[in-house]
Amino acid sequence: MITSTMQDDFQLTVTGILQHGSRVYPDSECVTWTGGGARRATFAEIAQNAERLAAALAKLGVNAGDRVATFCWNNQEHLEAYYAVPCMGAVLHTLNIRLPAAQLVQIVQHAEDRIVIVDDTLIPALAPVVGELTGVKAFIVVGDGDASALGDSARVLRYSELLAAEEPGFAWPELEEGSPASMCYTSGTTGDPKGVVYSHRSTYLHALATLGAAVTGFVETDRILTFVPMFHVNAWGIPFGAFLSGSTLHMPGPYMTPEPICEFIASERSTAAAAVPTIWGGILQYGAEHDIDLSSLRVGTSGGAAIPRALMEAFETKYGLRIIQGWGMTETSPVGGMAHPPADVEIGSLDELDWRLKSGRVIAGVQMRIVSDDGEELPWDGEAVGEIEVRGPWITGSYYAADVPEKFHDGWLRTGDIGTIDHRGFFQITDRSKDVIKSGGEWISSVELENLLAGNPEVAEAAVIGIPDDRWTERPLACVVLRSGSDAEPAELAKFLDGKVAAWQVPENWTFIDEVPKTTVGKFDKKVLRTRFQDGELKVERTK
Amino acid sequence: MITSTMQDDFQLTVTGILQHGSRVYPDSECVTWTGGGARRATFAEIAQNAERLAAALAKLGVNAGDRVATFCWNNQEHLEAYYAVPCMGAVLHTLNIRLPAAQLVQIVQHAEDRIVIVDDTLIPALAPVVGELTGVKAFIVVGDGDASALGDSARVLRYSELLAAEEPGFAWPELEEGSPASMCYTSGTTGDPKGVVYSHRSTYLHALATLGAAVTGFVETDRILTFVPMFHVNAWGIPFGAFLSGSTLHMPGPYMTPEPICEFIASERSTAAAAVPTIWGGILQYGAEHDIDLSSLRVGTSGGAAIPRALMEAFETKYGLRIIQGWGMTETSPVGGMAHPPADVEIGSLDELDWRLKSGRVIAGVQMRIVSDDGEELPWDGEAVGEIEVRGPWITGSYYAADVPEKFHDGWLRTGDIGTIDHRGFFQITDRSKDVIKSGGEWISSVELENLLAGNPEVAEAAVIGIPDDRWTERPLACVVLRSGSDAEPAELAKFLDGKVAAWQVPENWTFIDEVPKTTVGKFDKKVLRTRFQDGELKVERTK
Repeated sequence: MITSTMQDDFQLTVTGILQHGSRVYPDSECVTWTGGGARRATFAEIAQNAERLAAALAKLGVNAGDRVATFCWNNQEHLEAYYAVPCMGAVLHTLNIRLPAAQLVQIVQHAEDRIVIVDDTLIPALAPVVGELTGVKAFIVVGDGDASALGDSARVLRYSELLAAEEPGFAWPELEEGSPASMCYTSGTTGDPKGVVYSHRSTYLHALATLGAAVTGFVETDRILTFVPMFHVNAWGIPFGAFLSGSTLHMPGPYMTPEPICEFIASERSTAAAAVPTIWGGILQYGAEHDIDLSSLRVGTSGGAAIPRALMEAFETKYGLRIIQGWGMTETSPVGGMAHPPADVEIGSLDELDWRLKSGRVIAGVQMRIVSDDGEELPWDGEAVGEIEVRGPWITGSYYAADVPEKFHDGWLRTGDIGTIDHRGFFQITDRSKDVIKSGGEWISSVELENLLAGNPEVAEAAVIGIPDDRWTERPLACVVLRSGSDAEPAELAKFLDGKVAAWQVPENWTFIDEVPKTTVGKFDKKVLRTRFQDGELKVERTK
Repeated sequence: MITSTMQDDFQLTVTGILQHGSRVYPDSECVTWTGGGARRATFAEIAQNAERLAAALAKLGVNAGDRVATFCWNNQEHLEAYYAVPCMGAVLHTLNIRLPAAQLVQIVQHAEDRIVIVDDTLIPALAPVVGELTGVKAFIVVGDGDASALGDSARVLRYSELLAAEEPGFAWPELEEGSPASMCYTSGTTGDPKGVVYSHRSTYLHALATLGAAVTGFVETDRILTFVPMFHVNAWGIPFGAFLSGSTLHMPGPYMTPEPICEFIASERSTAAAAVPTIWGGILQYGAEHDIDLSSLRVGTSGGAAIPRALMEAFETKYGLRIIQGWGMTETSPVGGMAHPPADVEIGSLDELDWRLKSGRVIAGVQMRIVSDDGEELPWDGEAVGEIEVRGPWITGSYYAADVPEKFHDGWLRTGDIGTIDHRGFFQITDRSKDVIKSGGEWISSVELENLLAGNPEVAEAAVIGIPDDRWTERPLACVVLRSGSDAEPAELAKFLDGKVAAWQVPENWTFIDEVPKTTVGKFDKKVLRTRFQDGELKVERTK
């Protein structure tokens, strides 16, 4: 029997990523914005600090598999924890700093976090629940701000003091590539948050795959402004990818508003930025009234929600900045698709923008399919609409300590996204499966209606939900926030949709609200709207 | 105990590469040059033909693990075999078409090849040994040329007929990622050829890693002219990488001389080309006398041997073409390093060329170190000289059916390359360990002397070997081929080296030869020179 002679037992680990970055790119930097200026650390220094942190955590009794949580902005210390915790064999649990208190407690308890590393500026957000986090042995405070709100001082340690007491040179253990490296809970709008546990293997493969020129193409000359939070899905894998490519990391810390962001970009000459559409929109709005310099940016990446065409166009026209849209979710590490236009479309052409507005094109390493309601695989013809399912080495196959069989289908993850795939792997998400409106046996995309309504100058934002209907089973209810000063009527808004969608898709149910409720990561929280509708809190006007 | 929730059992296979290419990039092409024009097949068609070929091979009795050899140029059918054979669970054995008959027989027998796929144009090279290849059940001839020289017609089948008799839709088996996919024998200049067996995992990871923008950066818009033979180290992994990136493949077939090469580039607008320095040199020489159009090329890749600075400069000056040097060997799949300049060097600056002349910079996924004669790890300071050792998921850990412990060191592959590594992972190979000359306890680089001598206008080429010396243990012997018409004397050549190397490194032993003997892949075969010296066939003149 012939067998491979390759080193197939060579383990793909986060430690390998750390070592590559610190040995081959020792001078690349993590630059953390401090408001008026920046703190800098080279990758070599990050690696040494990670060794110190691991030594300190080991002394605190952190063992293999123990969960060490972070409650931090994107900054240098968070990056050090990103490496120290997995490389020592423990599990990094990144906590969403915007979670409601009850969910935060629930997640910390569910994950059994033993240590929490917390930014001093975030102590006010953590303090109210500290008393309930009885399983946490220590809070390690980053920065020298007042920590008295954390209570019991025996549990409170200082990050800088812990590191100062240690020497570099921690002996990283040999780890199996399948061992757990980090975990993250979904901030889904339905049901309890669910945790996924990333392995060393999945983290390594995801980082390697994202470096492809058809994904990010990041190289050593890049300086990547990482807006996408490190507390959410590995910050799209950028902190790991950067150590493989040698790209310098630009970390905004708590400075997430347009003014300091633009200062950061102009002063540090960021070449790339990764952010959700809300951030991009904020920059654009700020730029309308201020003189900003984005000339250093060669590319922008947008994800987390569909980016409006107008936003993409404005960046291109005004700043010459191309924005590429990516797709992913907590369960997919996250990158599963990037909307780079196909080879036969000329860069810079009008047509090209249409391609970049697609949800994505399947990237190498991920397998995708769409299936009908009855579980049948549908063709890649750009027409057939079904639920998108994915599988691959960085896709979750289960949830942590939770049995959720309905999210899986023959080994594929059901993404909950509804859409089409064309014959070249471009997919277009039209809705979330829980939001799609099933009217008379046909599907109406709530997202499409929302995007069209948002294009009406009278409308600030709009969310569309399905409500019960005797004849059609379900019909759309448009929940509209008018721009201040507008007194647009439902009939006027319905008329605006004429010809833009099929006549039967135009909502006849309308309600005006003050704002669309949002989740902690800024997505429309339609669950709240549905509850308000059921509780009779929404005043519905009918146009026919 | 916490465990990963990721799909860590998702297997990385060549089948996954094939499926990605044929589903996401169905319209990308394999273009095979036919002399005056080209044959084209889309990736979708390649996949279908691979399915047909697998069905045909299965009917011929090819089972899991069986070796199917190819004796082919770079062409469409070779690409189909690249996928069909591994994806069906068999092992692709790429035979070097330039091997001496005895070695060819030895390798086919050692690998126990059961089937040989052979280009009709290569039948003359195979025919003389066919009688000895008794273990081969069938020869599958590509093309409709005369096959009578293969003898026994019962063993001779036609590729096109086999495929015509099959339908697409072969059910690829589920394979373990550690299972063998393909094999290749080294064409080393010492001892018997040794085989390495690539796994599905190593092939997948190597392909994924080479797509990084810091390695090749190949994308869908690329059209990659693959000169580097598919019979040698997976053609640098390009046939696999292209199916992950969607890059079109340009295959030269037997047309490997400058004239058809330049026609191919101009007519198909290749954007990238990968070749050994000899090919690059040939193009340059041809271009000196003919009007050639290389304007479509955005990058050239050179490997297999050190590229002379003059060659690189000439391409840049004359054609605006940047050539990047890569490093690898049969044992490393092959890519282990690429000499992209570091971030702080300005592209296009003079300084930049110096960096691209380095042997390479360690790529993500490969670990490298240098060790002294006594096995101690040496610092990455750009000064310490030692043997380069590598390890990683696409590095061999043994040889096929051969026990060669001296090639390994604590789990690292000893590359046989001698050189330095600087503090940022740039390595510079100064010699092969078997060629380096140990004179009075110090090392003299034979390669450095050869390169310097080659820069002398009187010299066509020069090889330097070590010969025994009573006082210094070893001293260099320069074996020089003079340009026609030159009557340069040894003293004159020795003087030329004055000041270019330390005085004690200048050879005092000289011999003039008609040409430097070369291996089948075009490298200097110094083993032959050493034998000729030992047999007293070289007339040595001394300068002091």
